[in-house]
Amino acid sequence: MSTDVPRAQAGALAARVVAGDTRSVARALRDVDDRVPGYLDLLKELFVSTGKAWVVGVTGNPGAGKSTLTDRLIQALRAAGKKVGVLCVDPSSPYTGGAILGDRIRMTRHANDGGVFIRSVATRGHLGGLSRSARDMVRVLDAAGFDVVLVETVGVGQDELEITRTAHSTLVVMAPGLGDEVQAIKAGLLETADVFAVNKADRDGADATVRDLELMIALGTEAIVAAGKRRGHVVHGGVKVDALPDAPAPADAPPELWTPPIRKCVATRGEGIAELLSALEAHHAWVSTTEAGRERRRARLVEEVREGLRETLIDAATSALARELDEAAAAVDARTLDPYTATERLLARFKATT
Amino acid sequence: MSTDVPRAQAGALAARVVAGDTRSVARALRDVDDRVPGYLDLLKELFVSTGKAWVVGVTGNPGAGKSTLTDRLIQALRAAGKKVGVLCVDPSSPYTGGAILGDRIRMTRHANDGGVFIRSVATRGHLGGLSRSARDMVRVLDAAGFDVVLVETVGVGQDELEITRTAHSTLVVMAPGLGDEVQAIKAGLLETADVFAVNKADRDGADATVRDLELMIALGTEAIVAAGKRRGHVVHGGVKVDALPDAPAPADAPPELWTPPIRKCVATRGEGIAELLSALEAHHAWVSTTEAGRERRRARLVEEVREGLRETLIDAATSALARELDEAAAAVDARTLDPYTATERLLARFKATT
Repeated sequence: MSTDVPRAQAGALAARVVAGDTRSVARALRDVDDRVPGYLDLLKELFVSTGKAWVVGVTGNPGAGKSTLTDRLIQALRAAGKKVGVLCVDPSSPYTGGAILGDRIRMTRHANDGGVFIRSVATRGHLGGLSRSARDMVRVLDAAGFDVVLVETVGVGQDELEITRTAHSTLVVMAPGLGDEVQAIKAGLLETADVFAVNKADRDGADATVRDLELMIALGTEAIVAAGKRRGHVVHGGVKVDALPDAPAPADAPPELWTPPIRKCVATRGEGIAELLSALEAHHAWVSTTEAGRERRRARLVEEVREGLRETLIDAATSALARELDEAAAAVDARTLDPYTATERLLARFKATT
Repeated sequence: MSTDVPRAQAGALAARVVAGDTRSVARALRDVDDRVPGYLDLLKELFVSTGKAWVVGVTGNPGAGKSTLTDRLIQALRAAGKKVGVLCVDPSSPYTGGAILGDRIRMTRHANDGGVFIRSVATRGHLGGLSRSARDMVRVLDAAGFDVVLVETVGVGQDELEITRTAHSTLVVMAPGLGDEVQAIKAGLLETADVFAVNKADRDGADATVRDLELMIALGTEAIVAAGKRRGHVVHGGVKVDALPDAPAPADAPPELWTPPIRKCVATRGEGIAELLSALEAHHAWVSTTEAGRERRRARLVEEVREGLRETLIDAATSALARELDEAAAAVDARTLDPYTATERLLARFKATT
């Protein structure tokens, strides 16, 4: 009985979110980010209204001009009549307070536009917490009726890479002369990228950056195709597809294997933004309409459910076995028990609890 | 019955490791790092012979001179008659092949010394795998009778920080003029550091680096003491101790709260190494003899058992529920089930399996 009250409250808030009430969206985002009691009920209520938004990840190293580019994408999407939600998980982002005044001023452009909703995600201490919060907050914006949700994050850590995996389409922003392009790709960005933007393309070295990327993509694709031929399937950007067809697909059908296009742009002057958005939209069509794209969406849902299970298991086990964990550690400390056997016994004990 | 054969083999290998047979130590390290079948039996057999070695973590940003300093510490420890095992988890380390020829030549100094054993840890793709491998490999060297085990790692990522938590004493190596000192401290190194070395102290800016560190430590300690006063206990480097005593402790007793000392050195010339080693040994005495130090060891064992349980749980659940996970993901994809409820149901299902 007592759990019905929060569930009913969650239902009421969810209804207001789905109706697009701005205050309720803000409240729901805060509740989900802070994981206040009842936030899971809220997410359960909202889930049926999700699945309509196009989620676009924007990532790249500091200095590549991500936030300026995000700003331009918001403009272009607004001009096309789309409602845009933005989540920032970049500690150096203007939205989260890490950046210079000029950035802040620039962003206020959207402050009075009801079709744009910008929110930052708190950085959490625990592993994986950031990506889970980001994913759940994306769901809130999705349910609230935003057509596009942009998730901006620095592409450096494991946690940030995880976040891009919650997106349908991930844009990796590079800039010439940062000297870390190749390193960035090594760090896992190549697997993550659906579209590359070479920003600040009016600078020296932009063409070299494009060529480096083309080479990396060609080598990566070659390795992927080779691996696929060996193993009977192709793994690319988290997608497992069947072996490549012998004959090329008809020219008007989306390709089975997505090769990330590269677009040059100068975000500060708004140059190349339309072409970049077209490339992203082509990827969206690929994800939405091809079997490979559908498979990728399914694979990510499997991953989400698996991760959820993982976190829930750990929470359940550590709270159910608090005393047993302490006792086991004491026995290990006294060397009357080894930690490996201790783990096995705790697992058995956990499964015996109801 | 069938499990008795690997267990007996593990027992025989363990006995040879404990007897100090070099080939067997190398074999055991490889088995543990690769997690070959039966490696857990080996670790179980070895565990009773562990707990004697002093485990020292050496970490710091690239360019701080970690490997040169590690080399000097090996020399100093050998001169004191100690057997030294070294684990390298630094991809740029000379042992693991990332560094320049000069480094390699320098390290060959120990090649013919039976009292020194140097091994690298493979970088694993999965989260937490590196720190688990490192911890288990430390156990092998401990059981083999090495008095000191040095664990050298780059102090940049979460995984690397985890590794330093397996050490009794952690040395953080800084160098003047790298421009990333403060950033390094922000990234969690302050909580990790038991002793700071300001290497390359003959360079400009060494005193400034020392002052910066002193300030950071003072601020950190202040914040720690303030937090402790508020919450009734002091958390420091993973240690939870009771509220600070009102009267200062007698001068000859180890302090209840460890404040990381800072030592300047020039590793290339061997200057300051004795003083640095003394500071590390003082920390070892603190960890070994004070209640706060014992509590820290216990806290880390609890953490290890908890982490082991976590990994085992996940492995057990994902293999027991492979089909159910796929079905749940399909239902979520069809939006007939939300992922949060799916997780709860899977948890219940897992606990029902035997």
